[in-house]
Amino acid sequence: MTLKRAYNFNAGPSALPEEVLVKAQKELVNFNETGMSVMELSHRSKDYEAIHNEAKTLLAELLSIPDNYEILFIQGGASLQFSMIPMNFLTEEKVGNYVLTGSWSEKALKEAKILGRSTAVAATTKETNYNRIPKLTELNVSPDDGYVHITSNNTIFGTQWKEFPNIENNMLIADMSSDILSKPLPIEKFSMIYAGAQKNLGPSGVTVVIIRKDLLEKTNENTPSMLRYDTYAKNNSLYNTPPTFSIYMLKNVLQWVSERGGVAETDRRNQEKAALIYNAIDESNGFYQGHAETESRSLMNLTFNLRNEELSKKFLQEAKEEGFVGLNGHRSVGGCRASTYNAVPYEACDQLQQFMTKFKKRHE
Amino acid sequence: MTLKRAYNFNAGPSALPEEVLVKAQKELVNFNETGMSVMELSHRSKDYEAIHNEAKTLLAELLSIPDNYEILFIQGGASLQFSMIPMNFLTEEKVGNYVLTGSWSEKALKEAKILGRSTAVAATTKETNYNRIPKLTELNVSPDDGYVHITSNNTIFGTQWKEFPNIENNMLIADMSSDILSKPLPIEKFSMIYAGAQKNLGPSGVTVVIIRKDLLEKTNENTPSMLRYDTYAKNNSLYNTPPTFSIYMLKNVLQWVSERGGVAETDRRNQEKAALIYNAIDESNGFYQGHAETESRSLMNLTFNLRNEELSKKFLQEAKEEGFVGLNGHRSVGGCRASTYNAVPYEACDQLQQFMTKFKKRHE
Repeated sequence: MTLKRAYNFNAGPSALPEEVLVKAQKELVNFNETGMSVMELSHRSKDYEAIHNEAKTLLAELLSIPDNYEILFIQGGASLQFSMIPMNFLTEEKVGNYVLTGSWSEKALKEAKILGRSTAVAATTKETNYNRIPKLTELNVSPDDGYVHITSNNTIFGTQWKEFPNIENNMLIADMSSDILSKPLPIEKFSMIYAGAQKNLGPSGVTVVIIRKDLLEKTNENTPSMLRYDTYAKNNSLYNTPPTFSIYMLKNVLQWVSERGGVAETDRRNQEKAALIYNAIDESNGFYQGHAETESRSLMNLTFNLRNEELSKKFLQEAKEEGFVGLNGHRSVGGCRASTYNAVPYEACDQLQQFMTKFKKRHE
Repeated sequence: MTLKRAYNFNAGPSALPEEVLVKAQKELVNFNETGMSVMELSHRSKDYEAIHNEAKTLLAELLSIPDNYEILFIQGGASLQFSMIPMNFLTEEKVGNYVLTGSWSEKALKEAKILGRSTAVAATTKETNYNRIPKLTELNVSPDDGYVHITSNNTIFGTQWKEFPNIENNMLIADMSSDILSKPLPIEKFSMIYAGAQKNLGPSGVTVVIIRKDLLEKTNENTPSMLRYDTYAKNNSLYNTPPTFSIYMLKNVLQWVSERGGVAETDRRNQEKAALIYNAIDESNGFYQGHAETESRSLMNLTFNLRNEELSKKFLQEAKEEGFVGLNGHRSVGGCRASTYNAVPYEACDQLQQFMTKFKKRHE
C-alpha cells in the first residue's frame, strides 16, 4: 500500500489502521456479496448479527475476559457513562468514590453530583496540575463505597495508571477510553470497564462496556430502559438499533490487532513508539519538558511543552507544515501532545522524533 | 453505475442512495486530500466542523426550518428520546399526553411512566390493532399538557399522519424517525421533532432533533448533562465526541435529496413508488390485504397480508429467492411489509409490483 497518509497524532477521533480502512472501502458498497452496504443491513439480519457477535468474541479473546462478564455496545460516549454509572449502582447507602487524575475524572464526579448521589474523593493530584497518578497507598477507600472510579489514562494531562488497586469485592470501575486494548489487563480487578471507541477501538459512535454479571441486578426500577445496563445485556445490545457501521469498524480493528499478535505484542510496539518521543524529550536538556512525572507517563498521550508559549507555537506551526496532524495540546491546557494510539505507525513516531531533534537544533 | 444492487425494502437500517455510497467509498481512506479518513478527523478540526455545519444548513434549507429552532445531533436513537422528552419537559404540574398509534408510541409513553411523570392518552387506535390514525377531532387534549406526543409514521403497522393537529402553544412533539424528509412539513406546529437517522437520513448512530429555542430553558438542574437538550444547543452538538461518520453520511444524503429537487419532489416520487404497490394490493381482489385503512396508509411502510400464513410464508420465500430483501413484517405482527423510503429506487418498487402480480397469478 502506497497511499499518502498523514502523520496523525489526533487525541480522538484518531488514526485507524490503514489496512482496516482499505478493507472497509472495498466492502463499502457491496458487503459480502449481499448487494448492500453494511450500513444498509437490518440489525436483525444474519449478516449483521455475525459482525456484532464477532466483535464481542474478538474482544473477549484479546482481553481474556472471563465468562462472568458481559460485553455491551452503548451509544453516547464515556460522557453518558458518567451518568449511567451512578444511576445504575448508587443506592441510598452507597457512596461513589472517585480518584481525580484529570478533567475526565472531574466530569465523571460532577455527573454523580448532578444526580444528587453520595460521593467521595479517594485521592486527587490536582494540586500539581494532574502531573501524576496517585500511589495506591494514597487512596482513601471505604467498605461503604458502591464503587471506586478511576480514569486509567488521562488524555489531556498525559498520565496513565501502571498498576491497579485491589478494591473490596473488586468494585473498581475504570474509564479506559484512551488506553483500552493497548496492553494486557487484569480484568478480574474491575466490576466494570468502559471505553468510547474513538481512540484504540474504531470510529466514534459506540462505547464498549465490560461489566461483571452480578452488577446487572442492582438497577432501580425508575431508571429509563436505555440507561440500564441490563437492557443491553438481556438483548445482546440489540434492544434498539445499534450504531451498526461503528460496530463493523470495531470488529475490523479487533481483527487487525488479533492478526498482529494481540495485546501483548501491541503493548511492546506502543512502548517502542513512545520511547522514541520520550527519548527526544529526555535527551533535549530541557528544550522539551514533559508534563507528567516519569513514573506516571502515558504510553498513549505524550504531553510536553517548549520553554515558552511563543516557541511552542512555532513548533506546532512548523510541524503542521511538515504534515504532522493533531500535535496541539488540549484547548484547556495548551502546549503539545502526541497521541500514539495502537493504529499510529512506528514510522510516524520516528518522523516526529526526527522533527523534534531538528527543530531543537535550529532553535536552542 | 452498474453495480448489482439488492432490492432493499428493509425497515431500518435501510437502503441508502447508491450515489452516496459510491461517494463515501471514494473518499473513505483519503478525505478531501487530508491523507486521513473522515473517521480519523478530530471533531474539533475545520474539516470535520465544515461537514457538521453543512449537515445542519442543508436540513434547515430542505425542511424550511425557521430561525427560532435549533438542530441537534444526539446518540441513542429515538428510544433514548422517549426518556429525554419527559426528563426535560415534564415538571410536576405538567402532563405528557400521548397519542397511541402503535408500538413506538406505546414505548414512548412507557418511558415517561418509568420516570414517574404524569401522563395521559389523548387517543388510541389499539382496539383495531392500530390500523388507522385517529381523526383530529378524536384527540382529547388539555391546556395542562406539557406536550402532546405523536408518532408521525408507524413503521410496524404501516400508518401515517396526513395532517397534524393544532396544539396550544404548538406544544406538539413528533417522533418522525420513519418519515422525516419524505415530504414538506409545517414545522411551526411542532415544539420538537426527532428522528433516528437510519431510515430516510443516513446510517444508524445519530438522531436528529429539531427543537424550538424557548424549550431549551426549561430543564431541571438534576438532569444529567448528556440528557439535557440545552447541552447540545449550547455546544453545537459538540459537547462530547459526536458520531462523526454518521453525521458525514447524513450530510451526503441531505445533499443528494437537495440535488434531486428537495422534499416536494421527493414526496412526488414517494407517492409514485407507493402507488405501484398499493395498486397491486387494491387490484388483487383480496389476494393481498392491506393492514391499514386507506386514508391512513403510510407512504413509507406498506403492510399487507396474504389469505393465510402459509401463503404469506411462500410469498416471502419466493420473494427472497428473487432478490428482494426485508419484506417480512415486523416480528411482533407478522405478514409482509415493504419499506419504500426515499432511497429505495422506483425500479425496486416496480419489480416488486411485477413479482406480486406474477405470484398472484400462480397462486390465486
